[in-house]
Amino acid sequence: MEKKARSHLARKYRQLVTLEKTFLGYPCDAEFDYAPLYKFLKFPLNNVGDPYEDSTYRIQTKEFEREVLKFFAKLLHIRKNDYWGYITNGGTEGNQYGLYAARETLPKAPVFFSDHTHYSVKKNVHILRMNQCIVRSQPNGEMDYEDFAKKIRGRKTAIVVANIGTTMTGAVDDIQRITEILEKHKVRYYIHADAALYGMVLPFCSDVKFDFRTKINSIAISGHKFLGSPVPCGILLARKESIKCLQNYIEYIGAHDTTLSGSRDAFTPLVLWYRLKTKGLHGFRKQVKYSLSLADYLVSELEKIGWPNVGKSYITVWFERPSQKIVNKWELAANKDVAHVICLPHESKKELHKFVMELHEEVKSAREPSDEL
Amino acid sequence: MEKKARSHLARKYRQLVTLEKTFLGYPCDAEFDYAPLYKFLKFPLNNVGDPYEDSTYRIQTKEFEREVLKFFAKLLHIRKNDYWGYITNGGTEGNQYGLYAARETLPKAPVFFSDHTHYSVKKNVHILRMNQCIVRSQPNGEMDYEDFAKKIRGRKTAIVVANIGTTMTGAVDDIQRITEILEKHKVRYYIHADAALYGMVLPFCSDVKFDFRTKINSIAISGHKFLGSPVPCGILLARKESIKCLQNYIEYIGAHDTTLSGSRDAFTPLVLWYRLKTKGLHGFRKQVKYSLSLADYLVSELEKIGWPNVGKSYITVWFERPSQKIVNKWELAANKDVAHVICLPHESKKELHKFVMELHEEVKSAREPSDEL
Repeated sequence: MEKKARSHLARKYRQLVTLEKTFLGYPCDAEFDYAPLYKFLKFPLNNVGDPYEDSTYRIQTKEFEREVLKFFAKLLHIRKNDYWGYITNGGTEGNQYGLYAARETLPKAPVFFSDHTHYSVKKNVHILRMNQCIVRSQPNGEMDYEDFAKKIRGRKTAIVVANIGTTMTGAVDDIQRITEILEKHKVRYYIHADAALYGMVLPFCSDVKFDFRTKINSIAISGHKFLGSPVPCGILLARKESIKCLQNYIEYIGAHDTTLSGSRDAFTPLVLWYRLKTKGLHGFRKQVKYSLSLADYLVSELEKIGWPNVGKSYITVWFERPSQKIVNKWELAANKDVAHVICLPHESKKELHKFVMELHEEVKSAREPSDEL
Repeated sequence: MEKKARSHLARKYRQLVTLEKTFLGYPCDAEFDYAPLYKFLKFPLNNVGDPYEDSTYRIQTKEFEREVLKFFAKLLHIRKNDYWGYITNGGTEGNQYGLYAARETLPKAPVFFSDHTHYSVKKNVHILRMNQCIVRSQPNGEMDYEDFAKKIRGRKTAIVVANIGTTMTGAVDDIQRITEILEKHKVRYYIHADAALYGMVLPFCSDVKFDFRTKINSIAISGHKFLGSPVPCGILLARKESIKCLQNYIEYIGAHDTTLSGSRDAFTPLVLWYRLKTKGLHGFRKQVKYSLSLADYLVSELEKIGWPNVGKSYITVWFERPSQKIVNKWELAANKDVAHVICLPHESKKELHKFVMELHEEVKSAREPSDEL
C-alpha cells in the first residue's frame, strides 16, 4: 500500500478516537471489546440462507446465530417450537421482513402506524407496494388510540406496526390496547413490533408487555443499539405460523432461502453471541438500571438550567433542540424542534453534566443583551 | 465468559481452519488479510444514509466508501458526475435496489430475465410486487435472444435483468443484442446488470462490453466474491438519472436516505478500499489471468479422466454433478445434474489436481463390477 493511503487510514483512526468522546445522541452503545473475535475475519464467512438449515457452504456460524435467537426467544416469551428468526443487517431489514410476511398473510391490508414511526417503515411500505394509513400520535409520541379506532372502523384486514420505543421520544405503543381495538371491530390483523432500541431494554423493566405474550406476529430488534456492535445488525423473530407463506426451497444453496439477504454476515452472530455470553442476563439488567438512572439524572440537570420542553421515556430524554453547533458537536439526533439523548451504558454522569453545562452557556448567552440589538 | 462458551468458540475456529482447506465450489475468494483494519472494530461504525451526504452520525467511513465507488465508476466507464452508488450488504441488496429504481421508472413494466438467473432476482421481483417474464436460455446458460424477442413483441415497457456471469455456468448475456431487440420493437426499457462475480473479472478480459458503455442503467457487483471479504458486501452503481425518483430527504439522520438499509456497515467499505489499495489494478489483472489459467487447467484435467459434460466460461468450470460425498467435502455448488468450480486466486493447480483425482476414483469405482449385481 502506498504511503498516502497508509496515512489516510491512520488519520481516519485518530479522527474516530476523537469523535467517540462526544458521541451522545445516537442510540448505539460504544463500550465493547470484540478483539477475541477478530481472528475469525480471516475466513470468507457466510451464513447463506436459513439459519436452521445446513448449507453446503460451511464457512459459517449458524450454530452461534441459533443460540442468539434462542436467547431472544426466551427473553421475548416464545416457546422453542413456535418461533423462527434470523440475524439481519439491521432494523430496516427486520422491518422489511415483518411487513413482507404481513403482506403475504393479508395481501390487501393497509399498514397502520403512527406518525412518530421510524422512516424505514414508510420506506419499506413503499418498496413492498403496500398501502399505508398514518395514525396520529399523542404529545408523548405514543399512538393516538382514538384516531386508530376511527381509522380501523369498517376494515376487514389490517397490518399494524407498533413502536416499542419511537425514534425521537422513546414512546411505546400499547399492543394490548391496539389488539382490543382490532378485535372489537372484527378486523383480521398482523402486528409487527419495531423494537429496534427497546427490545433489549424493556425486558428488564417489569411494567410493559410488548413481546410474544401479546398477539404480535413478528418483532425486529437492533443489535448495534443497546446490545452494541461495530457494524449494524439486528434480530428478527417471528411466530412460525406467521411466516409459513415465505418458505421457498432453493437447491442451489442447499438451504431453505427464507431470509431477505441470501448471503448473510456470519461475523455479527459471533459478535452478538459473544456479547450475550460475556455480559449475561445479569449484566444487561445492570446496564438497563444504570441507563435508567442516567436518564433521571439528565432530566434533573436539564430542569436545573431551565432548558425547555424536557421529557423522558425510559432511557430516552428529549428536549428543545439546541443550536446546530451543539447538535453537531454531540452528534445529537434532531427532528424539527426536538433533540434527544439516549442514555446508554457507555455514557457517564460526568459527560452528561459537561453536555448540560454547554447548553447552560447557550441559555446564559441568550439572556444577555446582544450588541447587535 | 464461561469455560464452556470459551471452548465452543475455540472449537469453531479450529473447524473453520480445517474447512477452508477444501473450499472450492463457491465463488468467494479466501486469500486475504485485513488484520490492519481490525482496530476499527472498536467503534460503533455506521455509514447511515447516502454516501455523498454528511450525516450528524460521524463515526463513519463514507470518504472511503466514495473512493471505492470512484474506482468502480472508472472501471465500468461512467463519468464522475453521471453516477451514484453505495456499498451494499451483498448482491441481493444491489439487485433489489436496481429493480426498485426500475419499477419507479417504469411502474407497470414486467421484469424479463433468463431461467439461469440467480434466485435472488425472482425473490426481489416478488418482494417488489412486480410481474416477471422468464426467458429461455441457450445450453450454455446465456439468454435465448429469439425467445426474448418473441416475448418482448407488442410491449410498451420492459425491465431486463442481464446476467454478467450466471450462477451455474458463468454465462454472460449480450447487452448490446438485448438493447437492439428492445429498440427494434420500440420498447421503453431499464436494464439492470447482475454482475455479482464477473463485475470484477470481465474488466480485465478485453472482449466483452457489459458496463456503462452499453445502455445499462444500474449494476450490482459482490464484494465478497472475486474481491474477497470476510463478510458479504457489494457495490451498487447506477446512472444518476436512473435513480432520481428514489431521493427522499429524512431530516432525522441529517442525510438523504437514498439507500435501502439506512444504517449501513461502515467496516466493509474499509475492507474493499484496503483491498483495492493493496492489490491495485495491476494485482487484479494478474489475479484474473491466473484464475483463467486455472480454469483451462481444470478443464484439461477433467477431460483427461473423461468426466462428462465439462464446460467453461471465463473462470467458471462446470461438469456433471458428482456424488453427494464429493459435493459436501469440496463445498461444491450444485443444481440438478450440474456442479461447478469457480477458479479463484486462493486456489492452486495442486488443489484442483487433488480434487480431480478424487473424481477419478469415482469414475473407476463406477466402472468396476459391483458385488451386489
